[in-house]
Amino acid sequence: MIIVMKPGANQEQIDGVVHRLAEIGSEAHISTGQLRTVIGAIGDRGRIQQLPWGAMPGVERAVPVLKPYKFVAREFQAEDTVIKVRTAQIGGGVFAPIAGPCAVESRDQLFRTAEAVRDAGATILRGDAFKPRTSPFSFQGLAEEGLQLLAEAREEFDLPFVAEVLDPRDVEMISGYADMLRIGTRNMANFALLSEVGKVHKPVLLKRGFTATVDEWLNAAEYIYKEGNHEVIMVERGIRTFETSTRNTLDISAAPVIKAMSHLPVIIDPSHSSGRRHLVTPLARAAIAVGADGFIVDVHPAPETAQVDGDQALLPYEFAELMDQMRALAAALDYTI
Amino acid sequence: MIIVMKPGANQEQIDGVVHRLAEIGSEAHISTGQLRTVIGAIGDRGRIQQLPWGAMPGVERAVPVLKPYKFVAREFQAEDTVIKVRTAQIGGGVFAPIAGPCAVESRDQLFRTAEAVRDAGATILRGDAFKPRTSPFSFQGLAEEGLQLLAEAREEFDLPFVAEVLDPRDVEMISGYADMLRIGTRNMANFALLSEVGKVHKPVLLKRGFTATVDEWLNAAEYIYKEGNHEVIMVERGIRTFETSTRNTLDISAAPVIKAMSHLPVIIDPSHSSGRRHLVTPLARAAIAVGADGFIVDVHPAPETAQVDGDQALLPYEFAELMDQMRALAAALDYTI
Amino acid sequence: MIIVMKPGANQEQIDGVVHRLAEIGSEAHISTGQLRTVIGAIGDRGRIQQLPWGAMPGVERAVPVLKPYKFVAREFQAEDTVIKVRTAQIGGGVFAPIAGPCAVESRDQLFRTAEAVRDAGATILRGDAFKPRTSPFSFQGLAEEGLQLLAEAREEFDLPFVAEVLDPRDVEMISGYADMLRIGTRNMANFALLSEVGKVHKPVLLKRGFTATVDEWLNAAEYIYKEGNHEVIMVERGIRTFETSTRNTLDISAAPVIKAMSHLPVIIDPSHSSGRRHLVTPLARAAIAVGADGFIVDVHPAPETAQVDGDQALLPYEFAELMDQMRALAAALDYTI
Amino acid sequence: MIIVMKPGANQEQIDGVVHRLAEIGSEAHISTGQLRTVIGAIGDRGRIQQLPWGAMPGVERAVPVLKPYKFVAREFQAEDTVIKVRTAQIGGGVFAPIAGPCAVESRDQLFRTAEAVRDAGATILRGDAFKPRTSPFSFQGLAEEGLQLLAEAREEFDLPFVAEVLDPRDVEMISGYADMLRIGTRNMANFALLSEVGKVHKPVLLKRGFTATVDEWLNAAEYIYKEGNHEVIMVERGIRTFETSTRNTLDISAAPVIKAMSHLPVIIDPSHSSGRRHLVTPLARAAIAVGADGFIVDVHPAPETAQVDGDQALLPYEFAELMDQMRALAAALDYTI
Repeated sequence: MIIVMKPGANQEQIDGVVHRLAEIGSEAHISTGQLRTVIGAIGDRGRIQQLPWGAMPGVERAVPVLKPYKFVAREFQAEDTVIKVRTAQIGGGVFAPIAGPCAVESRDQLFRTAEAVRDAGATILRGDAFKPRTSPFSFQGLAEEGLQLLAEAREEFDLPFVAEVLDPRDVEMISGYADMLRIGTRNMANFALLSEVGKVHKPVLLKRGFTATVDEWLNAAEYIYKEGNHEVIMVERGIRTFETSTRNTLDISAAPVIKAMSHLPVIIDPSHSSGRRHLVTPLARAAIAVGADGFIVDVHPAPETAQVDGDQALLPYEFAELMDQMRALAAALDYTI
Repeated sequence: MIIVMKPGANQEQIDGVVHRLAEIGSEAHISTGQLRTVIGAIGDRGRIQQLPWGAMPGVERAVPVLKPYKFVAREFQAEDTVIKVRTAQIGGGVFAPIAGPCAVESRDQLFRTAEAVRDAGATILRGDAFKPRTSPFSFQGLAEEGLQLLAEAREEFDLPFVAEVLDPRDVEMISGYADMLRIGTRNMANFALLSEVGKVHKPVLLKRGFTATVDEWLNAAEYIYKEGNHEVIMVERGIRTFETSTRNTLDISAAPVIKAMSHLPVIIDPSHSSGRRHLVTPLARAAIAVGADGFIVDVHPAPETAQVDGDQALLPYEFAELMDQMRALAAALDYTI
Repeated sequence: MIIVMKPGANQEQIDGVVHRLAEIGSEAHISTGQLRTVIGAIGDRGRIQQLPWGAMPGVERAVPVLKPYKFVAREFQAEDTVIKVRTAQIGGGVFAPIAGPCAVESRDQLFRTAEAVRDAGATILRGDAFKPRTSPFSFQGLAEEGLQLLAEAREEFDLPFVAEVLDPRDVEMISGYADMLRIGTRNMANFALLSEVGKVHKPVLLKRGFTATVDEWLNAAEYIYKEGNHEVIMVERGIRTFETSTRNTLDISAAPVIKAMSHLPVIIDPSHSSGRRHLVTPLARAAIAVGADGFIVDVHPAPETAQVDGDQALLPYEFAELMDQMRALAAALDYTI
Repeated sequence: MIIVMKPGANQEQIDGVVHRLAEIGSEAHISTGQLRTVIGAIGDRGRIQQLPWGAMPGVERAVPVLKPYKFVAREFQAEDTVIKVRTAQIGGGVFAPIAGPCAVESRDQLFRTAEAVRDAGATILRGDAFKPRTSPFSFQGLAEEGLQLLAEAREEFDLPFVAEVLDPRDVEMISGYADMLRIGTRNMANFALLSEVGKVHKPVLLKRGFTATVDEWLNAAEYIYKEGNHEVIMVERGIRTFETSTRNTLDISAAPVIKAMSHLPVIIDPSHSSGRRHLVTPLARAAIAVGADGFIVDVHPAPETAQVDGDQALLPYEFAELMDQMRALAAALDYTI
């Protein structure tokens, strides 16, 4: 931590900061410039970061040198985390195509979609039974019945599946069905839910809050990781900006940023970021070019009848065409797909 | 809903939209311009808004005419909602000063603060026992012990208190102690929590998600309202923008915007929006000038030792000076304070 | 400047940074932590800030301790700058109400408005002859003819006036008419224009770019200041955020932030920030409560016929009512108005 | 335009809108819903869009159905615009790699870079002689001497070059040297400059304002186009968001969005968007995968000595490696590079 003193800070105030650091067993390195005194705090990161430096007399601001998370940082583990979901792999040179309906609506809708994405080359099925909706009057999902259908589809098409969990009270039940859990964008900072998911032995797709910085997102992963669940996959799904021509702004740079800062795999969601069907295919291609470890794409056999997010679902034939392009790109970039 | 067709949309596609509207018992009004056909959909708002118009052949986009929420809208109830919290009032010409420590840290810290804010003129005490922290290694609050201390302070200083609820499993327990509940900014779209709080008979301070639009925030209020709890107070506490000289950007315009769109009271949090002690007083003054129904301000007897958010806490004497200014402004603006 | 080295930075890289600092006559203070080495650079701010530290081997990032601007900083001049515009004053305890039409459309429209705002208590008239419009097909202003009308109105109603300048080639001509120049939000980083305006002896209203940080805005003021023109007034007029219920988000905190960082006066534009007539009055009241030195408000005798920004113009009687409220607030807050 | 009336709008107010439309020769289609009356305005887009609908009695808001720009829209010209810059091509299936130093600093620096990027496969040289700098104390470029060096480099290495223009007074002079002009991000809404550049017969790279919506950016292109210069290339270079791990957030979706809305080519700037050297290569690969028509990349032989933006410049060997990857991707995607 670097503590920048105010221009007029006096010796007593500087001594106050040094004393406070000494109390927590940390050292102070003082640099006296012409206009400002700067104090470098060296010692236990956790203890230093938690003191309210900005509230101390004479302090202008405190600038952290280290990130607040540890376990998910690249410095903690140099080699990439590679995750297995039954037959499928995410990371380690393998690009994972995850696809399926946004929400499970019926057996027929789910099975038609699952068969189509399996045939096109998807390795993991997506499909939700619980949906967080902005309006309380919208369709909220089929609940446990949806999970039963997903489990049947897994057997029928030999595809592991991922489903969203919304409520800490549902974690155990959903884990009984799903191969992988998903934390949605609205729940990225729902710390009660993160902790609960951290106690389960299932990989977790952790969507970025549409308003979260990369640092906050990695801190959310840390919540899961520190409870004992080390199988976290980061999902970039767009952030909220002033631009309205897309539903959110896909922050594609986040993929290489995360890979530099963390050992966790990163995948991209071109469907929920763009919210527009015609943008999904180009953004999915960009995902592999930028170095992501997979994508998660909405597919629906009849988007114009979808109960959730029909605007962005690919038709099965569009998804098959996309997968052809992905295979050509994977070959050019030395990925396995 | 206004459905705008693509430039080349053909008659069959226009008929498709009209047919779909007829299926849900709605009417279509077709306007044919030189470059676009536009279809006005008239009928049940809920059913119309839930169809995936953007996914239908020939449709360019759909523009909602009505808001998705009903009960919290000014059109549903013309007169202002006024809320009583024991001896205190929020709304109806009464400006409510809510103040206290960000987190309860000890009996001494809480009681010193409570006495000071009561003496200065606060009508409701704030103080949290459960804190959502970005890092899992930060102080998380005193839990139930904190609530017991708050209940003791209520008796001692005759001040009702508000406390944050983070987890749906804690709603019942916290309601047993607190006079008013608070939903924090990170949980504004935690629909499981909103529904649980909607079942309780206590007023709720609903903080705006720092990334939420006004419409999403009113939708969150709707979640609480439709479960039967009609005592919701909207709290503007800053939104996330590119500006970093303040912790968040206080969207002060949201107060008159909400008052035009809704009958619910609105208060302002100058502490968490700015994150800087020297900005709290001017922003608190602006709250009453802009027409808000109250403020919620952090006060701490020794901010440089605070375990949470010390940077922004006022000292007791600063809060007393602020309250003097507030009384002068209330007189000029015909408020009771 | 604080230079944070990468975790694995070696001695040669550290020496490289120290050597580079020595070359520009600066000193290096090295702090060696467990995980990072941090180098404090002490010496000439300008020379240190201009080197590409992030591109040097072994460097993770460089954190500036000092702001890049000098002359406009509070540290350069402790006392507030107070500005006189003929008979009017901005700053020094005087709140300046500036009002008038967004654009000059005709002699009649201008004179009716000028008379009304003068009668209500405005001390400076606004009115533009050159308008920057997003679309090239929109009304672009009356040009020099508009300035002539403004000069006539000045004589008739004894009100100094401010007008926008868009093009460096027009600065001299417009200065021949106007008492104060205005740099619009789109031109805040038009450095050619800022430099030209810096050579003129007229006060300048410098609107914040709707996308500019406070630091960038103060740097823009520095461009004007360093050319010799020290009469700069900062105008907060809203920033671009994700919120769409207002045209921009008024960053009201910017007023006290600027007053802490700079000696320049700050005023607020509630009209262009909100873009909605019913929000102008509450936001104008908040301007004085938050400690700003004035406001600039659009008034139009018939907004429904306005050629620019009619949606946000107050009617003359609404402006008169606002001024009554402003006088009550000024009395409560010890301002002269 | 769709005009939505307020809930309580009366017949007189509805008639007022209809009458106003009639005055400008437009038709009104009235749809009366249970809660709102909606009026569809059909007629001349330009005249309808310029009236201040929001200021008319009884009107809640006006929603435009059509975009304000015409000439640059896909509907105005169905086939893609393809641009030739001497020997180079942008668009029409040809991916254009533009590379070179951010600023021309010396003959040696420029020539070493030009040779390296030519050898690696770049088809156009970048290099600026005039730099807009946030601080007035930073290096501002070599001015006309820089252009002379660029012209020499063009002869020596047979590469056309692009240079930035900052001031309307310099357009003619710079056009005398450069093969292509560039409007920088800070000047995207500098309408005086756009108009001047519109009168020149040189292709123009139009950078997106880092705060501009796609619609505003296309409007800026319209300013150039309507003056007679039809050779405009759109450059996505990142937008300002809350995320700080990159300098700006590359809005990669803007490439397919623009290609759907306009016939103009789009290229991507991975250097200025990210501001970090290690992100440039992955983002440059994403540019071709998403369907852009080229990129513009900073290259410098010794970034640690660069006078501008050294943090993001690729070394010559890194650029050569990138070009190898680009050729593999171009082959997979059927582009010529």
